[in-house]
Amino acid sequence: MSTDIKTNYQEAAYELLKADANKILKLIEVQMENLTMPQCPLYEEVLDTQMFGLSREIDFAVRLGLVEDKAGKELLEKLEKQLSALHEASQNK
Amino acid sequence: MSTDIKTNYQEAAYELLKADANKILKLIEVQMENLTMPQCPLYEEVLDTQMFGLSREIDFAVRLGLVEDKAGKELLEKLEKQLSALHEASQNK
Repeated sequence: MSTDIKTNYQEAAYELLKADANKILKLIEVQMENLTMPQCPLYEEVLDTQMFGLSREIDFAVRLGLVEDKAGKELLEKLEKQLSALHEASQNK
Repeated sequence: MSTDIKTNYQEAAYELLKADANKILKLIEVQMENLTMPQCPLYEEVLDTQMFGLSREIDFAVRLGLVEDKAGKELLEKLEKQLSALHEASQNK
């Protein structure tokens, strides 16, 4: 049995999810730099929508057995920490 | 090279997406049967959120090469047709 393909899919899935998490981080960074208020409801909504989309992708990958449940949770938690650090930094400016 | 694992993942991905599409359909059916207004903004929001979540899952599967772009689009279109048929049926009651 070849486990290469399995490993390839698993690695590709994880890389895609990491890239998507980074896209969200970049999007929020750009919003912060352009001085859009983090208190703005639209900002919250964009962020919520993006986080929901990512969590659905992660959930899908976990259900397919491509990503470990723990790794998926950690990816989301890491992004949440990075986002709240960004948020704090923008408030201390 | 074993293409079994590849095929397994592809089939599993498609089955999962079909199951998720069916869940949305069932959710909306239940809402219709319980006479919640299809004009209700909350109904629209639930549906939009669910459709967005599914489209992100499909997009992820397509980018991973597990599902054909065409098959993903068809899955979404079929669900949209089913939903609008449901919607119409509820208005003609």
